[in-house]
Amino acid sequence: MKISILTLFPEMFTGFVETSIIKKAILKEIIEIEVVDMRSFTEDKHNRVDDYPYGGGAGLVLMCQPVVDAIKATRTEDSLVVMMTPQGKTLKQSVSYDLAKEKHIILLCGHYEGFDERIRSYVDMELSIGDYVLTGGEVASMVVADSVIRLVDGVITQESHEDDSFSNGLLEYPHYTRPREYEGMEVPDVLVSGHHENVRNYRLKESLRKTQKMRPELIESRDLTPLEIKLLAEINSEE
Amino acid sequence: MKISILTLFPEMFTGFVETSIIKKAILKEIIEIEVVDMRSFTEDKHNRVDDYPYGGGAGLVLMCQPVVDAIKATRTEDSLVVMMTPQGKTLKQSVSYDLAKEKHIILLCGHYEGFDERIRSYVDMELSIGDYVLTGGEVASMVVADSVIRLVDGVITQESHEDDSFSNGLLEYPHYTRPREYEGMEVPDVLVSGHHENVRNYRLKESLRKTQKMRPELIESRDLTPLEIKLLAEINSEE
Repeated sequence: MKISILTLFPEMFTGFVETSIIKKAILKEIIEIEVVDMRSFTEDKHNRVDDYPYGGGAGLVLMCQPVVDAIKATRTEDSLVVMMTPQGKTLKQSVSYDLAKEKHIILLCGHYEGFDERIRSYVDMELSIGDYVLTGGEVASMVVADSVIRLVDGVITQESHEDDSFSNGLLEYPHYTRPREYEGMEVPDVLVSGHHENVRNYRLKESLRKTQKMRPELIESRDLTPLEIKLLAEINSEE
Repeated sequence: MKISILTLFPEMFTGFVETSIIKKAILKEIIEIEVVDMRSFTEDKHNRVDDYPYGGGAGLVLMCQPVVDAIKATRTEDSLVVMMTPQGKTLKQSVSYDLAKEKHIILLCGHYEGFDERIRSYVDMELSIGDYVLTGGEVASMVVADSVIRLVDGVITQESHEDDSFSNGLLEYPHYTRPREYEGMEVPDVLVSGHHENVRNYRLKESLRKTQKMRPELIESRDLTPLEIKLLAEINSEE
């Protein structure tokens, strides 16, 4: 899979492509990341990529010409052009799984007050990472790239992402590692019992407990199995 | 405001602190960013910070000692310790406004399979940036820092963030800049009319239109003003 990032701040991505899992995926040639500087496409004699908004208001707006030319130069018939914007569809784990099947994703990062509206007609999808505003699309594009890359075959082990929060519709169960006791807090006995079925049931129960407490709507919208119904009844009688 | 980022990958933040608005806020001494390498706190003779999970399973778990010691060395009585985790409260613009009032935020970035559960008892708040899984908390902490920093007084102009998507409960209206015509697409006449009230109404109407189309639940949960009710009726009769 290839991911092209179209940005005015290519230097922001230096650290990102050097991180553990991303770097390994690039070295294994499973993933190719291309960072494209949209400023190099401007035909403005002062090298500008933005200008004041028609109708007035604070901030500067990204002009059509450099952005659209950068898209045209980067896309092929296999590309999915994704605009990072708070007005887009909200990213969810299921969206990341869908994007992980693409051959080429182009992530278009805005900055300043936003894109000229007409740029929207050159994109296939608008994507938001959540209901909050960022100074630009750069950090949001890293979120999308990171969540997608780890789901591409061969990047991490299958078991690692099957256990993830949200992958099975629940928050993840608690983890413990050495030492068995830390500042008076002990690892639950069941995890050192060596009894696999008990460990599985404990983990499912704690996943349900955490999800019910933090994100009850995920439980409400879930098709519960008989075991899950029994464990939830136990949790509710304990509290 | 001071933001401390506790991470195993300090090099990931180099590009982030060099970006336009963040860098200006640091130079103006409105914001101080401290990146703390948790690995430097380990007392393990092989310099390890993670280990296998009790009870088995894929991935490695961050150990209590280096993480808790890094928290203890960084926090003061003014600190809010925030753990980045998919199991936390979901970040929203209103949460960013609250965080922007803090004196010192410590953002704790996990990696690998997650934190030893006992580390949770040393944090004040668990925060998620959305319902998807990332390879680590680093990119998530940049999202939180970015969304909070731009709301701190003096970082960007007040008008810039009052117009933001979500700040008034609606998605932002469309922006246009030069040229008036681009590949056959024109800027709406009202924006070049110079009629301020018409521009304001056009923008509110387009905000409502975009929100109704992309995020209808934001309209449903809104206390509509009489003008908004009138504009929504116009939109619905047009379609």
